[in-house]
Amino acid sequence: MGITAGGVEALRESLDGRWGAVRRGSVELLGGLKPPGELEREEYRAWVAEQLHALAEGGHPLIGFPAEHGGQDDVGGSVVAFEVLGFGDLSLMVKAGVQWGLFGGAVQALGTAGHHERYLRAIMSLELPGCFAMTETGHGSDVQHLRTTATYDPDTEEFVVDTPDPSARKDYIGNAARDGRMAVVFAQLVTGGVTHGVHAVLVPIRDGGGAPMPGVRIEDCGPKAGLNGVDNGRLWFERVRVPRANLLNRYGDVAPDGTYSSPIEGEGRRFFTMLGTLVRGRISVAGGAGSATKKALALAVRYGETRRQFTRPDTGEEVVVLDYLAHQRRLLPALATTYALHFAQEEMVSALHDVSDDRQQRELESRAAGLKAVATWHATRTIQTCREACGGAGYLSENLIAGLKADTDVFTTFEGDNTVLLQLVAKGLLTSYRDHVGDLDPWGMARFVADQAVNVVIERTAARAIIDRLVSGSSDALLDRGWQVRQFEDREKHVLEGLARRLRRASKEDAFDVFNAAQDHVLHAARAHVDRVVLEAFVAAVDRCEDPEAAALLDQVCDLYALSTIEADRAWFLEHGRLTPQRAKAVSQAVNELCARLRPRARDLVDAFGIPETWLTAPIAA
Amino acid sequence: MGITAGGVEALRESLDGRWGAVRRGSVELLGGLKPPGELEREEYRAWVAEQLHALAEGGHPLIGFPAEHGGQDDVGGSVVAFEVLGFGDLSLMVKAGVQWGLFGGAVQALGTAGHHERYLRAIMSLELPGCFAMTETGHGSDVQHLRTTATYDPDTEEFVVDTPDPSARKDYIGNAARDGRMAVVFAQLVTGGVTHGVHAVLVPIRDGGGAPMPGVRIEDCGPKAGLNGVDNGRLWFERVRVPRANLLNRYGDVAPDGTYSSPIEGEGRRFFTMLGTLVRGRISVAGGAGSATKKALALAVRYGETRRQFTRPDTGEEVVVLDYLAHQRRLLPALATTYALHFAQEEMVSALHDVSDDRQQRELESRAAGLKAVATWHATRTIQTCREACGGAGYLSENLIAGLKADTDVFTTFEGDNTVLLQLVAKGLLTSYRDHVGDLDPWGMARFVADQAVNVVIERTAARAIIDRLVSGSSDALLDRGWQVRQFEDREKHVLEGLARRLRRASKEDAFDVFNAAQDHVLHAARAHVDRVVLEAFVAAVDRCEDPEAAALLDQVCDLYALSTIEADRAWFLEHGRLTPQRAKAVSQAVNELCARLRPRARDLVDAFGIPETWLTAPIAA
Repeated sequence: MGITAGGVEALRESLDGRWGAVRRGSVELLGGLKPPGELEREEYRAWVAEQLHALAEGGHPLIGFPAEHGGQDDVGGSVVAFEVLGFGDLSLMVKAGVQWGLFGGAVQALGTAGHHERYLRAIMSLELPGCFAMTETGHGSDVQHLRTTATYDPDTEEFVVDTPDPSARKDYIGNAARDGRMAVVFAQLVTGGVTHGVHAVLVPIRDGGGAPMPGVRIEDCGPKAGLNGVDNGRLWFERVRVPRANLLNRYGDVAPDGTYSSPIEGEGRRFFTMLGTLVRGRISVAGGAGSATKKALALAVRYGETRRQFTRPDTGEEVVVLDYLAHQRRLLPALATTYALHFAQEEMVSALHDVSDDRQQRELESRAAGLKAVATWHATRTIQTCREACGGAGYLSENLIAGLKADTDVFTTFEGDNTVLLQLVAKGLLTSYRDHVGDLDPWGMARFVADQAVNVVIERTAARAIIDRLVSGSSDALLDRGWQVRQFEDREKHVLEGLARRLRRASKEDAFDVFNAAQDHVLHAARAHVDRVVLEAFVAAVDRCEDPEAAALLDQVCDLYALSTIEADRAWFLEHGRLTPQRAKAVSQAVNELCARLRPRARDLVDAFGIPETWLTAPIAA
Repeated sequence: MGITAGGVEALRESLDGRWGAVRRGSVELLGGLKPPGELEREEYRAWVAEQLHALAEGGHPLIGFPAEHGGQDDVGGSVVAFEVLGFGDLSLMVKAGVQWGLFGGAVQALGTAGHHERYLRAIMSLELPGCFAMTETGHGSDVQHLRTTATYDPDTEEFVVDTPDPSARKDYIGNAARDGRMAVVFAQLVTGGVTHGVHAVLVPIRDGGGAPMPGVRIEDCGPKAGLNGVDNGRLWFERVRVPRANLLNRYGDVAPDGTYSSPIEGEGRRFFTMLGTLVRGRISVAGGAGSATKKALALAVRYGETRRQFTRPDTGEEVVVLDYLAHQRRLLPALATTYALHFAQEEMVSALHDVSDDRQQRELESRAAGLKAVATWHATRTIQTCREACGGAGYLSENLIAGLKADTDVFTTFEGDNTVLLQLVAKGLLTSYRDHVGDLDPWGMARFVADQAVNVVIERTAARAIIDRLVSGSSDALLDRGWQVRQFEDREKHVLEGLARRLRRASKEDAFDVFNAAQDHVLHAARAHVDRVVLEAFVAAVDRCEDPEAAALLDQVCDLYALSTIEADRAWFLEHGRLTPQRAKAVSQAVNELCARLRPRARDLVDAFGIPETWLTAPIAA
């Protein structure tokens, strides 16, 4: 029933994409590690720390850092390598992300030559384990208003880092509770009595022996729902002094006499520029979520192909559960969406790698916010579905899905709360990415929207020529890709225009309330946009695929993604006269038929993910 | 903004219901126990076993057992007492359910006087810890086809209990890995070479010293996603001999010479009658899921009322997160549904307590299947939502939601897989509960449906007179309860009639395929039915509430439940011409408005659940 082994290989190559070599190399490196089994928390943390060294020795961290410091200058490749870690132990993935992506990435992106020279090699080699200390207990999403202060003292040419109140403690900080020696601390920079907004300062938090530095208080966050191999902690600073050179001064500097200077005017703009350079973290989380989702689906599909339940009376045989429509309905649209998100992720990684101007950068930031939200929610939902689809077996740790569920749960929260991120996406769309919008308040947004035409023009992001062709020649058949694309585009345009009209009506006095009352509308607009971008990426991938058998299969998977997405929001299409009741029912029927058609291919589709077997060792997957 | 303390108390009394005294007593007993904190698995199991004794000493198990053996004969009360345990440690709740509900319940329901005399006191006192060994690795849902055998040997007047193949091992059995001394083993009863279907046999599995009995192999299921205080295990029997008297012989007996007799004809009917007597377990799980949901909502609402994020520009103050529409949308419809399910649960417990004929019993079994499925899915979804609504704090174990999530996850699977249960509900509806339908195959169902009128008559289950009045005098206003009830009824009737028409077309040859192709339709019919039954229970509860302030509040909560349920399935109402696009949008708008109206009452609504503060001790709930 399945396609040929060569067919699976062609499918896998299509998934491997631009960073195929990095991907295969990373799979090999990961495949050489051994799953930890059941460990107590401290043992587990020790195991993760040890494996991190194995990754360092295997060259994993080199990929993304500058060649002049021993790296490979491959930004896109570094995200792909991180993504592959998502097939393995997720605590290890997150710990790697904290050390090299967040900590190392901040030093690289926010620091200057001196910092790079001094720290990057030690960061890559793990000689200097570090933390990314941004979140505070009272400010998780609204990081622009963090309360930690870094006050410049010209007499000693030092910054004094301080935690002014309990809500300003740094919280959930990875690498803080056990291993970190240094932290990139985000704090309000004050010099000469003037606050210049949030900046990043390097603060040593532990001495060579592992004891907290004077004035630094460290607390363990304790057990968590998952990711217990990562040592998250809390940090308090009591007037801790660090040299002036510890300021990561690419976007704002303080002269020895205390004079502040910055290449970017405006506190808000500066802060969001700094945040923007850290976009790789968000993109990485979306990729890691994708890998975990693939692994859960691989386990559920394998089990669904062998587990039998209830007898088919005409043959007397017990029925393989994946032959039930309800089981297909659970797994196959989720599998199709996982494919779609994979290609959207690949395209986003390319955009990150190639970004060359401000407008592209802002579009990338918006894309990263949107895809991170959609991909991590998809992960949470799909892994839950896979757990349930495997029944009691899915609840046992030995079958791996329980761990995937627990570990990925926080992905919807960290690197930006999904609900907040989708609002960023909508703001970007409403302002056509003209400028950083992170610091526009509701009234600022309302004025901005009022100044714009509310006639939204959908800009196709990928494969423009192909999509133009598909749309212009399209019929109204449900399986016509051009029709599908038109539905996605039309919905985005309509939802966005309606939103713009609502927001324009706001006055200075009621702007907050108008925005708040439209919050569900805002989230819907962002979702509709992300869905469209994802579909375009899938269309482009089908078009790129040179193997005819694999391309034909991808084409059907793309149909299932498109139609199940329309089905999920068909109330909107009905409410807005885009689907007649008859046609809406036909969409559901078409999803059922696609499930039946793809069911014999399910195993091939998960095999093509190329997950190393070492990390799929579970009784249900045998 | 909230109602008076007296108002909260009136609300709580309304929730307390018919078993108010049992409920308050159980809350007091539970409130006297202390949460375990973080424990290793074996320590945790020991803690749970110890607390079980505290519950026994507190009289918890007496409630449901017969007075003649020292119990209190209060079946309904026993379910309510179990439900209250859901506010505490869920491993303890489940372990109590295994010992007294499943093991003790099976001895009580399937055994006869001799068994009761011999075992019930020892079961209540924990002198005899036991297991309920039904599920096998290869047969989790299709328990009618279990493979374990109990073969009668007239020479020694013993049953020989045997595990014939690896897939027939008993799996996920609570109390098996550490504490159980005896198991109720479900097995195919064979005597004189003839199989009489599944029966239950008491098999000692450990001796007084705790070592496995000869021929019994026990394996630990190992770590699980949650409920790690419960010792789930696997059991294999190698020709284990037990005396003839160990057969729980209420529904099938074997004479010393091997002659089989039963008061019920037909293997299938007999088996489903036996299963039916165990309905209390399913009802209890629905109740426990409700308590866990309430606790998660209480935590999320308390945190949502204190946590602030982003500044409101017109006042300069940081906004309390529960003031955001998106946050209200996450928590308040879920809270309303939790109220609705509470009242439906209460009504179901009453039906269990008062059941007096076969038809009522079958209706109860169907109700239990449906509410168990809907309540446990609601729990999984709502607890997930609460976790996300609390951000990073929600991920820390100290804030309790992580544990609730992990522990309740399997509720959608155990005591019947939800998807299978909803199919049972639909079968019951299609056959008007005329007979046990568990063993009707698709072709049997098709013939049955063909013989019936396909003109479904909705039978109101609760508060018939009130609902008749509401419906007959109803306008078309969205907040008119009569209109809401009509929508629920109309949807159920239409979906069910359409389903009946589809299934009637099946022939003997294609019956399986016709049923399989309609599986999503089947599930939808069951959901629509359960939703209606739940709404009716809520309507009855509002009507019963004598305190005007509490009644007015409940009335609004009921509106939110009804309209958010219609909103969630509004695609169906649009597809079937029940809602115009304009009106569908008005439903969404009304949900938003109800969220705003109920937001100041959110804290009162969760306070009225009466969760003991000992079990709400978390930094986010301070």
